[in-house]
Amino acid sequence: MPGGDEEMTERIRQGDVRAIARLMSLIENDSPEATPALKGLYPFTGRALVVGITGPPGSGKSTLTDQLTQEFRRQGRTVGIVAVDPTSPFTGGAILADRIRMQQHSLDPGVFIRSMATRGHLGGLAKATNDVVNVLDAAGKDLVFIETVGVGQDEVEVVKTAHTSIVVSVPGLGDDIQAMKAGILEIADILVVNKADREGANRTVAELQAMIALGPGRSDWSPPILKTVAIQGEGIAELAQGILAHQTHLDQGGLRQLLQRERSRAFFLELLQERVTRRLLEQAGANGILDQTIERIAHREVDPYSAVDDFLKKAGL
Amino acid sequence: MPGGDEEMTERIRQGDVRAIARLMSLIENDSPEATPALKGLYPFTGRALVVGITGPPGSGKSTLTDQLTQEFRRQGRTVGIVAVDPTSPFTGGAILADRIRMQQHSLDPGVFIRSMATRGHLGGLAKATNDVVNVLDAAGKDLVFIETVGVGQDEVEVVKTAHTSIVVSVPGLGDDIQAMKAGILEIADILVVNKADREGANRTVAELQAMIALGPGRSDWSPPILKTVAIQGEGIAELAQGILAHQTHLDQGGLRQLLQRERSRAFFLELLQERVTRRLLEQAGANGILDQTIERIAHREVDPYSAVDDFLKKAGL
Repeated sequence: MPGGDEEMTERIRQGDVRAIARLMSLIENDSPEATPALKGLYPFTGRALVVGITGPPGSGKSTLTDQLTQEFRRQGRTVGIVAVDPTSPFTGGAILADRIRMQQHSLDPGVFIRSMATRGHLGGLAKATNDVVNVLDAAGKDLVFIETVGVGQDEVEVVKTAHTSIVVSVPGLGDDIQAMKAGILEIADILVVNKADREGANRTVAELQAMIALGPGRSDWSPPILKTVAIQGEGIAELAQGILAHQTHLDQGGLRQLLQRERSRAFFLELLQERVTRRLLEQAGANGILDQTIERIAHREVDPYSAVDDFLKKAGL
Repeated sequence: MPGGDEEMTERIRQGDVRAIARLMSLIENDSPEATPALKGLYPFTGRALVVGITGPPGSGKSTLTDQLTQEFRRQGRTVGIVAVDPTSPFTGGAILADRIRMQQHSLDPGVFIRSMATRGHLGGLAKATNDVVNVLDAAGKDLVFIETVGVGQDEVEVVKTAHTSIVVSVPGLGDDIQAMKAGILEIADILVVNKADREGANRTVAELQAMIALGPGRSDWSPPILKTVAIQGEGIAELAQGILAHQTHLDQGGLRQLLQRERSRAFFLELLQERVTRRLLEQAGANGILDQTIERIAHREVDPYSAVDDFLKKAGL
């Protein structure tokens, strides 16, 4: 990295926007050049409150995040936003969305927004998101929001790494919503029914209450259900209060340390999986074994399970 | 597996429902007992038409899949359905959904339905789905539908392994829908606007057309946009025709072989990643290195990037 890794690390710690953006691009391009800076920044992480916000498409997560950002800025706290976006790199939607949203906060150096497009499998979205959160954390942001579109497994993995997880619903989203709610209820520290001025908001709240009552239960914390109309700023102060209450709860019970360990474990495994596969594939790609193996699998000359066993045996594992 | 792996393989090839269900449970529980049977079945795979159906929550994918199943059954084709469901194992939603849907087809031995709940990270949803598709393929199903809830990266990975990918939209789903569409447009072989009796259906079709026109373009195939009202069976015959037309297209251009290789590659990598990580962790878990490493990362005594490098060095990689 130009200017040296130590200088870069120092600039990021000072909150230098250009240095932060440059490192994030390296992370997103999966460049090995990012690693020295990430190593240098790591000791300065672990200070930010990391808040995950997830929910189905159309639930108004971006608006909610933007309103929460304004609320926390009024309180004098700095904010980083990582928007995980299923938009393909081709269409440039992520970059466009960044620009539109940045305009809102463009005069405020206390806010940094970054969209991450979902990428190829080996790249590892959860790993890249974790890297970006660590950069914002080391850069001194008081709060980091991770905002995900979608309700898939990857999104749940991403949100799991947060200290406080917010799951957003809206009234009347249709059939699969029940399935979705059940899947993510367990990770929710706060439930939000957004667009609560719509018909059916109270029914949605009641449904969520019923599902929580049926769920495994948590002895330590019972997730509040809050109504918001994000576009009008309604319920935002209460939600911000709810986030801080959950953070206080984490600190009191020594839970933050447990979470820290969980985050460390998840990140280590993510990184391990990516690195070891990459290393094996580099070896196998270089000597042509990979292509031969895949050709044989495609022609049913060998089954993939035996092929992987062979492959690992040759690598001495 | 009781009865011996060869007998099990044979029974599955004959379409024995109990044997199929038993193997699928082993796959879902990530049991090593599944592997011998999967190895034995692999030579008999590669015959089924694999059709992916994805789209946001509430777009009516299940109804669409059920209607397509009825249509193909009328044509005398057998069908397997794999519903990838974000419902947590706790709530049992996946099993419940299976039962409800099975009632519809319960008198028909030509249909097999299985829901897969999304699971822990190392289990690998895409790997498990691939395994289940292979079982249905070897069991002689003419068509296998993979139905996914959600629009995340994991779902895209799952659908990518299909021969024909269907992306379902509905009129008026809200803000993020644009981003979603862009992200999955590239994998769509057929676009469906379901609930097309709703207001705004034609606008949704026009939007999709515009996005395709702006996209990278495909020299070989231009994805049709079809309107359906699945709940009333409208447009289903045309969609079934569209699926078969795409399959014919694949056969004519030699594209099926290319896809076969792509599927083999993706599956091999998925399997490799899972096995190698599991093997490393078993070693590290047994000697306590894993917990020590994670503790040191959590306390910021070492950064995770260096810790992974150390870890791989010790494993001789």
